[in-house]
Amino acid sequence: MRPSSSTSEPPSGGLFDGVLARGPVREAVADRAWLRAMLDVEAALARAEARAGLFPVEAAEAIARACRDDALDLAALGRDASASGNPVVPLVRAITAAVDDATAAGEVHRGATSQDILDTAAMLVARRALGSLLEDLDAASDAAAALADAHRGTLIAGRTLLQHAVPTTFGLKAAGWMAGLDQAAIRLDQVRRTRLAVQLGGAAGTLASLGDRGPAVVRHLAEDLGLTEPVQPWHTDRTRVAELAGALGGTAGASAKPAQDVVLLSQTEVAEVWEGVAGRGGSSTLPHKRNPIAAVSALACARQAPGLVATLLSAMVQEHERAAGAWHAEWRPLTDLLRTVGSAAAWLRDCLEHLEVDPVRMRANLERSGGLVLAERVAAALAPALGRLAAHDIVERASARSAIESRPFAQVLADAPEVRANLTAEDLAALFDPAGYLGSADVFVDRALRAHEARRGTAAG
Amino acid sequence: MRPSSSTSEPPSGGLFDGVLARGPVREAVADRAWLRAMLDVEAALARAEARAGLFPVEAAEAIARACRDDALDLAALGRDASASGNPVVPLVRAITAAVDDATAAGEVHRGATSQDILDTAAMLVARRALGSLLEDLDAASDAAAALADAHRGTLIAGRTLLQHAVPTTFGLKAAGWMAGLDQAAIRLDQVRRTRLAVQLGGAAGTLASLGDRGPAVVRHLAEDLGLTEPVQPWHTDRTRVAELAGALGGTAGASAKPAQDVVLLSQTEVAEVWEGVAGRGGSSTLPHKRNPIAAVSALACARQAPGLVATLLSAMVQEHERAAGAWHAEWRPLTDLLRTVGSAAAWLRDCLEHLEVDPVRMRANLERSGGLVLAERVAAALAPALGRLAAHDIVERASARSAIESRPFAQVLADAPEVRANLTAEDLAALFDPAGYLGSADVFVDRALRAHEARRGTAAG
Amino acid sequence: MRPSSSTSEPPSGGLFDGVLARGPVREAVADRAWLRAMLDVEAALARAEARAGLFPVEAAEAIARACRDDALDLAALGRDASASGNPVVPLVRAITAAVDDATAAGEVHRGATSQDILDTAAMLVARRALGSLLEDLDAASDAAAALADAHRGTLIAGRTLLQHAVPTTFGLKAAGWMAGLDQAAIRLDQVRRTRLAVQLGGAAGTLASLGDRGPAVVRHLAEDLGLTEPVQPWHTDRTRVAELAGALGGTAGASAKPAQDVVLLSQTEVAEVWEGVAGRGGSSTLPHKRNPIAAVSALACARQAPGLVATLLSAMVQEHERAAGAWHAEWRPLTDLLRTVGSAAAWLRDCLEHLEVDPVRMRANLERSGGLVLAERVAAALAPALGRLAAHDIVERASARSAIESRPFAQVLADAPEVRANLTAEDLAALFDPAGYLGSADVFVDRALRAHEARRGTAAG
Amino acid sequence: MRPSSSTSEPPSGGLFDGVLARGPVREAVADRAWLRAMLDVEAALARAEARAGLFPVEAAEAIARACRDDALDLAALGRDASASGNPVVPLVRAITAAVDDATAAGEVHRGATSQDILDTAAMLVARRALGSLLEDLDAASDAAAALADAHRGTLIAGRTLLQHAVPTTFGLKAAGWMAGLDQAAIRLDQVRRTRLAVQLGGAAGTLASLGDRGPAVVRHLAEDLGLTEPVQPWHTDRTRVAELAGALGGTAGASAKPAQDVVLLSQTEVAEVWEGVAGRGGSSTLPHKRNPIAAVSALACARQAPGLVATLLSAMVQEHERAAGAWHAEWRPLTDLLRTVGSAAAWLRDCLEHLEVDPVRMRANLERSGGLVLAERVAAALAPALGRLAAHDIVERASARSAIESRPFAQVLADAPEVRANLTAEDLAALFDPAGYLGSADVFVDRALRAHEARRGTAAG
Repeated sequence: MRPSSSTSEPPSGGLFDGVLARGPVREAVADRAWLRAMLDVEAALARAEARAGLFPVEAAEAIARACRDDALDLAALGRDASASGNPVVPLVRAITAAVDDATAAGEVHRGATSQDILDTAAMLVARRALGSLLEDLDAASDAAAALADAHRGTLIAGRTLLQHAVPTTFGLKAAGWMAGLDQAAIRLDQVRRTRLAVQLGGAAGTLASLGDRGPAVVRHLAEDLGLTEPVQPWHTDRTRVAELAGALGGTAGASAKPAQDVVLLSQTEVAEVWEGVAGRGGSSTLPHKRNPIAAVSALACARQAPGLVATLLSAMVQEHERAAGAWHAEWRPLTDLLRTVGSAAAWLRDCLEHLEVDPVRMRANLERSGGLVLAERVAAALAPALGRLAAHDIVERASARSAIESRPFAQVLADAPEVRANLTAEDLAALFDPAGYLGSADVFVDRALRAHEARRGTAAG
Repeated sequence: MRPSSSTSEPPSGGLFDGVLARGPVREAVADRAWLRAMLDVEAALARAEARAGLFPVEAAEAIARACRDDALDLAALGRDASASGNPVVPLVRAITAAVDDATAAGEVHRGATSQDILDTAAMLVARRALGSLLEDLDAASDAAAALADAHRGTLIAGRTLLQHAVPTTFGLKAAGWMAGLDQAAIRLDQVRRTRLAVQLGGAAGTLASLGDRGPAVVRHLAEDLGLTEPVQPWHTDRTRVAELAGALGGTAGASAKPAQDVVLLSQTEVAEVWEGVAGRGGSSTLPHKRNPIAAVSALACARQAPGLVATLLSAMVQEHERAAGAWHAEWRPLTDLLRTVGSAAAWLRDCLEHLEVDPVRMRANLERSGGLVLAERVAAALAPALGRLAAHDIVERASARSAIESRPFAQVLADAPEVRANLTAEDLAALFDPAGYLGSADVFVDRALRAHEARRGTAAG
Repeated sequence: MRPSSSTSEPPSGGLFDGVLARGPVREAVADRAWLRAMLDVEAALARAEARAGLFPVEAAEAIARACRDDALDLAALGRDASASGNPVVPLVRAITAAVDDATAAGEVHRGATSQDILDTAAMLVARRALGSLLEDLDAASDAAAALADAHRGTLIAGRTLLQHAVPTTFGLKAAGWMAGLDQAAIRLDQVRRTRLAVQLGGAAGTLASLGDRGPAVVRHLAEDLGLTEPVQPWHTDRTRVAELAGALGGTAGASAKPAQDVVLLSQTEVAEVWEGVAGRGGSSTLPHKRNPIAAVSALACARQAPGLVATLLSAMVQEHERAAGAWHAEWRPLTDLLRTVGSAAAWLRDCLEHLEVDPVRMRANLERSGGLVLAERVAAALAPALGRLAAHDIVERASARSAIESRPFAQVLADAPEVRANLTAEDLAALFDPAGYLGSADVFVDRALRAHEARRGTAAG
Repeated sequence: MRPSSSTSEPPSGGLFDGVLARGPVREAVADRAWLRAMLDVEAALARAEARAGLFPVEAAEAIARACRDDALDLAALGRDASASGNPVVPLVRAITAAVDDATAAGEVHRGATSQDILDTAAMLVARRALGSLLEDLDAASDAAAALADAHRGTLIAGRTLLQHAVPTTFGLKAAGWMAGLDQAAIRLDQVRRTRLAVQLGGAAGTLASLGDRGPAVVRHLAEDLGLTEPVQPWHTDRTRVAELAGALGGTAGASAKPAQDVVLLSQTEVAEVWEGVAGRGGSSTLPHKRNPIAAVSALACARQAPGLVATLLSAMVQEHERAAGAWHAEWRPLTDLLRTVGSAAAWLRDCLEHLEVDPVRMRANLERSGGLVLAERVAAALAPALGRLAAHDIVERASARSAIESRPFAQVLADAPEVRANLTAEDLAALFDPAGYLGSADVFVDRALRAHEARRGTAAG
């Protein structure tokens, strides 16, 4: 369910939104969407209270009608918020004025405090935004899964500390991306399903002005809005917000990891992948450039998350029954966190769905180090005959000589007497075939894909 | 299971540890405990590889014997780490030298990369630390539960933005503390049970040097250490670390919230609670001071968490198969985060277990505002006769006059003609009885306690 | 100098802006202001290049005319930014299309890279925003100075760990606020005057396409825009941004400190100050509440700064000649940081300029602890006769007894034989006069005010 | 001036210190150094008070003697700190017990509060640590300067978004590193010289127990310790700490930037530089690896700074005269921040002082893109004849064809009829010479080196 405003007024968007607010989350957390959510809460509250017998259903309907009207002047509400410290006070005034029934007007916002409305609206905004975000995240993960499956046999240099280490497959690399994205999605979905709860406590969490109907109203409200019913009001128990923030922070990191790899694999000297979106990534001054815009933008968005998570965690120290500042300090970081992580997911999806892979170049790069990536294997093959230490030394010397003489490591090694004494040319050829030194890469890809499919309810193509 | 070193050598402790590293987590994350965990991993790895048939069980036993010896020079390992970028390289050298069997010596650390050992050790350290941390957290939550139960009828001013708002009970306040602590514990425990996994991938995640035995070794290793078996190596998928960090960050906030309330309730002007630990909280220069040391220290510890969480989230962007810096950037923040949150939980437990409560002072403070905390109630009582708006205005005027004339609000209001016309003296007396305006406070306390007991498997006293 | 757009189109403002984006900085960092700054840079660049002889002045004038036109569709630029990764590419296209002279059109954006324009625009935006921010900060500091001067003799309890400690004056407290604000302003102004520099380097910092005219163009550009001329391009040297961020972070903290004190002093039980703005701080449901909205909002804004500073510092790791993501990650945090700190300063100014102080209540609160705040003094007076330790013990025992017996400390102490033996009733009366135990409070206020006046170029009223 | 303890007891060091606590700062911020600083402050305080006439010089000398003894049990002090909330209370007790003169014993810590001692000690610790840190930072900057000077003619690909853009020189790249380091050092030094001040205010900032001697004692204390004399006590004005934190955060970023570049330039596929330290960077399992350990470790250290800065900025909100938690929350982050930034600087110095550069490989990489890095230049050369747009199109088409046909861009372009019509073969050869397209690279290097030399007071070699 998207905010209804999305159809009536196309959002204008900001100067940096094309880069920093990609995808549907931008709109789902826009001020208009917040306002829509607040109106939804006030309307649902009236219905819940009528259902609990506090006033006639007709009054609730009148209130809901007034809340359906979103011709409200958002900027004016924002401005008037400065007198009371939040936008709910002017909103309630505006709704009350719009109710066409005097009795009903008196029941608007009955028993609620501003924070009840804003917190519940925040939960609605989060639920709607997470829906969109998870769609993009799942699509990114599916794209990674497809790459993992298609490239389970594509050799690539395994790189540690950005140095060639041993061979691996591009499939296993993509499976690693997928696993991170899947786990982020699992956690986000968990938070979405179990931790987004209605807030309703009145001024200090007792719901005193609702007499004994408080719990019933909370239950009806939760049912109406499709949010969790809390055990008790949670005005200054911010563990819900913290879990949401933590899950979003983890998603940012999980999205940035593949983006960083794509940027590195796209380097001019590496050139193993590129983003295949026509007409994007060009430069006004450099006619030849093809920048990995999607990966770069995903990184740019994801990098803004940790600081926002820290702000939200810091804001958990909320005084007594309702806080003096820390609560207000949540509104924007939560909005910004949802937006920037949503944008990261949208960019990453774009990146992975359009990723072009060059297996020939991957193989060529792998071989450029002249067999060095198989040094570990050759040392292991020599160990039984020479002892582990001696074997390691021979290989290390050959590696050094290879660098000094600018000759391929495999050749230098083949010339070493201890090697010739123990390994035939065929042995060596086999040892230097990277395809034979992939260990459990394929098993891991299989297991990872099965886990992905189990989560996504799909069978591999 | 505590690190064995704890019995043999009493940890000395640092200058600030009495305040900033309280409780058992300090020792569980000390360098000695990290070293113990690394040795445990190397020993278990040897056993797992022997079980997978890579070498005889006797070799594994010889290796495990060498790992049992923790007469290792920790500082020397730390120093030598600078040559390779981590302490595992010198550690492997030291273990190998200590193995009393030449064949076995060649099998030390077989197929593993340094990160395998350190990451798995980190998971062990985390599991052990979380055990202690959860004990303190649960004890703090139990103490809050006991307060909630004992004080369900203790009236106190509900305070919003640090101003008196409406009455509530100290029991409901304590139930709110308990709920936050319980949720933090639930999440931490979830992470502990499901997200702490073995790491084993070799140089680039393929376990190539173990041939086809890689997955079996991983499975045996996980069983041996009591950690989760991962679907695949996770060298640069740091979602596990992120979830751990997020859960710890949430725990910090949940621990700081009651601590902040205790500090505020302990103020000289409020004086509703104090920490009842003899001989603590004094001042060298001010003989009369009794500072809420436990609450202050809990706050001090908890406040250090959000920045550390941000560091760990930022470090998720790890390049290719193993990262160039971001992984190394995790070690200390993870250790510090466990320690500081463990310390916050230990201090909060201490604070809540010794909290002295003064219900008489709570009631006196509540009444000091001369009935103003019941203004909402009186307005509601007048509304049917006068209309909501008029009722609100009368109450507001009385409130203002009460401030100007320095007369109790209840008296000023009683003098207003509209009030006298509609409410008898008994009506007013009843309206101004805060015990009658607690709404669902008691219901919420009950529900919260039932949820707590269900989690803790206990019945209320 | 305000962005010209401010007159032509009244900014609409967001839902939370009344609370979280108070004061002039909001507008100075709005998207429209960024766009205006980019246009200013492109126009100034053309003028600088013409002045350096790269093309006729008439061409520069034609370009500047095209840049004066801000009928540009900001949202469309933002949208089109997604193809190139920043909004400068579509902006240059739009300017070029608007130039009414074919030759001149070919010279738009000559030799510059997108980052040159955006970075220089960021510096302009920062300079304009800092101008407004410093005005509010200075006004807040002046208000604190006025309070310090007016209340140099107003006694108040000195509170440590929120407990009464010894007497102090409200003047000294306000002088402390002032000192923090002044220092923040000094540092911000330093950054504004010396660290906001032109960026111009072309694709990779060599300005190759300008031949040998690069340095001249940079110099002219700096003069034209009133920014510092850098020694060399600084595309990936982000120390400027870091210093700006650090100064803003410090300003946030310096603004939050007095706001926190006002919130605490406004507590119902303390009630020593309140915000005297009519019609603000009311509650829809609680007719009697007068919340310190300005202080609370200042805190809410300031609390969002540290996380943003961390994001900007993390983004300093920028690759090679121009970064892949970290640079893009600066735009929004920098904007948000300026806005939130600007808002904190504006709220604090409002708070301090309207702060009402109740010296009678301050004195009453000070005396409520029955002389305990002078315990240190009495102990010192007894020390010569009894020895320091014995004196401390007597005072401590009296303090404990005072609590148990609920009698004023001064009375309990007066009854102690050792006290009676050494101090007369007059001695005791003098010792228990808080006005006589203020040490150097007045000297410090004087020194602080002189320093403030020296900075502000004013003499105290 | 190093802490004297460094000679008497060799610091043991932790398990991760070889990587994460390199260089002299580790020791300068160790617990032992903190203790030494606290003793220095207590001794200097006694001397200052004697000088101000509060007690005989002999008493001060007796106290100073007791403070010279650092046989204090640090761990016991730390443990006992938990009773009072800081280690100063047990320290004062220990000093008092060690004073061999009863009168003098009564004057220990006269008039000071615990925070006075700890804050002043923190300033001493910071000053000593910054001295070491600046040495390493300056050495790193000098090394960068030497590289800039030596390689002003060494061609290298200018890389934007990690793609080849236009040619530049390695000298200009190194000059950019140097500029960032220099600016960080300038700011750190500024803070060190002007913002590290004595703290002395007594319980609540009035120095009441010193009568009218307070200001004189502060002045003498500042002179004795070589710290700045503050205008007034600054217990809860934390702008000093914030500026220190900000400067350290900026230094971390400035140190990480070159480290990141070195890691990228060291990649197997790029291989333009390597760290030339024998016996370092090897791998236990991969005999051929030569990891850029120093750069990786510098990054690991620097990445931990932003979160710590955020913690310190968050802790600026300190209540009333002395804070309840936020102050205590500074001790460890400040220590850790100094250590991790000191370590980053030490590693970077090591990295840059041993950096081996391969100009041949730089040139080869530059040429590998077949002239594409000069596309901008060729387009500009064609523009006068063909018009800017047409020229850009031709170059873009040639670039695309070059990729499709796998032919060097220069060749493809030379075949285009419009090119042949307008440029001779010599023209083209000249255009494709990267050495001719360096713009102001050399000028910028010169200016940067002159600025560096001016700061460092040296002439280039």
